[in-house]
Amino acid sequence: MRLALIGTGLIGGSAAWAMKQAGIFTAVTACDLSASALEKALEMGIADRTETSVTEVVADADAVMVAVPVLAMKSVFAEVARNAKTGTLITDVGSVRGRVIDDARQVLGTHFADYAPVHPIAGGEMPGVEYADASLFVKARAISTPVAGMKNEAVDFWETAWKAAGSDIYRMTPEEHDAIFADVSHLPHVLAYALVDAMEKSSQAEEKFSFVGGGFRDFTRIAASSPAMWRDICLANRDALLASITRFEAELSEIKRAVAEGDAEAMTTVFTRASNRRRTVKVPVKQKP
Amino acid sequence: MRLALIGTGLIGGSAAWAMKQAGIFTAVTACDLSASALEKALEMGIADRTETSVTEVVADADAVMVAVPVLAMKSVFAEVARNAKTGTLITDVGSVRGRVIDDARQVLGTHFADYAPVHPIAGGEMPGVEYADASLFVKARAISTPVAGMKNEAVDFWETAWKAAGSDIYRMTPEEHDAIFADVSHLPHVLAYALVDAMEKSSQAEEKFSFVGGGFRDFTRIAASSPAMWRDICLANRDALLASITRFEAELSEIKRAVAEGDAEAMTTVFTRASNRRRTVKVPVKQKP
Repeated sequence: MRLALIGTGLIGGSAAWAMKQAGIFTAVTACDLSASALEKALEMGIADRTETSVTEVVADADAVMVAVPVLAMKSVFAEVARNAKTGTLITDVGSVRGRVIDDARQVLGTHFADYAPVHPIAGGEMPGVEYADASLFVKARAISTPVAGMKNEAVDFWETAWKAAGSDIYRMTPEEHDAIFADVSHLPHVLAYALVDAMEKSSQAEEKFSFVGGGFRDFTRIAASSPAMWRDICLANRDALLASITRFEAELSEIKRAVAEGDAEAMTTVFTRASNRRRTVKVPVKQKP
Repeated sequence: MRLALIGTGLIGGSAAWAMKQAGIFTAVTACDLSASALEKALEMGIADRTETSVTEVVADADAVMVAVPVLAMKSVFAEVARNAKTGTLITDVGSVRGRVIDDARQVLGTHFADYAPVHPIAGGEMPGVEYADASLFVKARAISTPVAGMKNEAVDFWETAWKAAGSDIYRMTPEEHDAIFADVSHLPHVLAYALVDAMEKSSQAEEKFSFVGGGFRDFTRIAASSPAMWRDICLANRDALLASITRFEAELSEIKRAVAEGDAEAMTTVFTRASNRRRTVKVPVKQKP
């Protein structure tokens, strides 16, 4: 089977590579607007052919993986629908489900039945196919969100492909997915960007940045992430993210009140509850090959 | 010289150990309320003697290092003042300077001249002397904040001791210190606690915590920190921290507006500025022995 990879970045590149190594695909055509990303994908052995247009890359593909920023997916889906063979298996790896599935339903037409998206819970803050790693998804979770109108065959195919890449598959509804990831992923990214930018705009910014320690380093690691990708995620998951921000603002406002009033008891309660949870929560450890 | 270490935790234990290995002290008496911490300090070779009362530990000491939560320092200083020999060199390692120096001035009496505090910019989120590491401060920064009333000899002694532990010494005023560390350290801790606690209180908390990824892991690492230590820091650095929180709230509110209104341009501006800074800022890499 030949895979058309549309969007040759960290996630798409790693996924295509892992699935090719696992034998799901025998060949990969990479498509991207960046010529250097395409060269890199060839060099690394991720792809055996490259194209710069969606029309060309889709024409002889048996399967299509869309791995572009989530708000760019709709026009890619439309072009896929115009050029793909009947029965071509289609997926995307987006971090937002409701909006992207709605977009797919609107423009994929009869191809929607052969579409099933899976969101892999893995990544790195440095974007680009040069950071791709075929073992990125080993023991990581991947969320499948099948809805009415998608054929079981398509859902099964992509779930099997992700299992072959090393992931554990979880199924949930798009709404459940978007609420959970607004809290555990999208909000932390917003907070990290906000912290770095608030410092950037404050007085003595240069001096402050020269005194950051390990806490700041880890806390803001994700602020190095791709601005375009995260802008799209925030806009596409608008309602769930706004709800998460609102809950966070209430929490911060309560801590601020406790600081202002010297309410040691309230601060102990919040800090202890959070600290106990953080020490016991199972957090993933990046698998190294 | 015999050092009295009051508060035998991660920072105090590591500092005493490093300074003993560097030859600044020939002997260390550890003092703590926790018998198990004292046993551990003996076992690890950090201390050769232990005491549970400040009165006892100070009696035959040539130097005293106070490494307890910052709001507990005042009463420790008072007891040190009542029991220390004339000329005993005194320091503390607190993360807040203005309030702690004020407390010291109020209760140390004539001993204030022999006092000079240094704040080492290092640590780990797991508190406890069992995590102590004599190389914790190698190539880390340490902030000295001498003020009128402290003898040069005391300032020089403690700066030399921290250099011997491997630190690079920076001098600044207590006000400057507290403003910088409110932004680069105290605010990130507040945000990490707030994020974990807001999730803890939200619906489907268990499910959410089961889906956290590497971003969440790093972002909230510092939320595992000692609640008592951080409650004290937040209360002691009240004014600077409130200013930092207020600036952060304005930044978050602007991002929230952009998400609500679908203002892609504003989000790109903020995310790009933060991302560029985060990718270029020099962040410390923990030295391993």
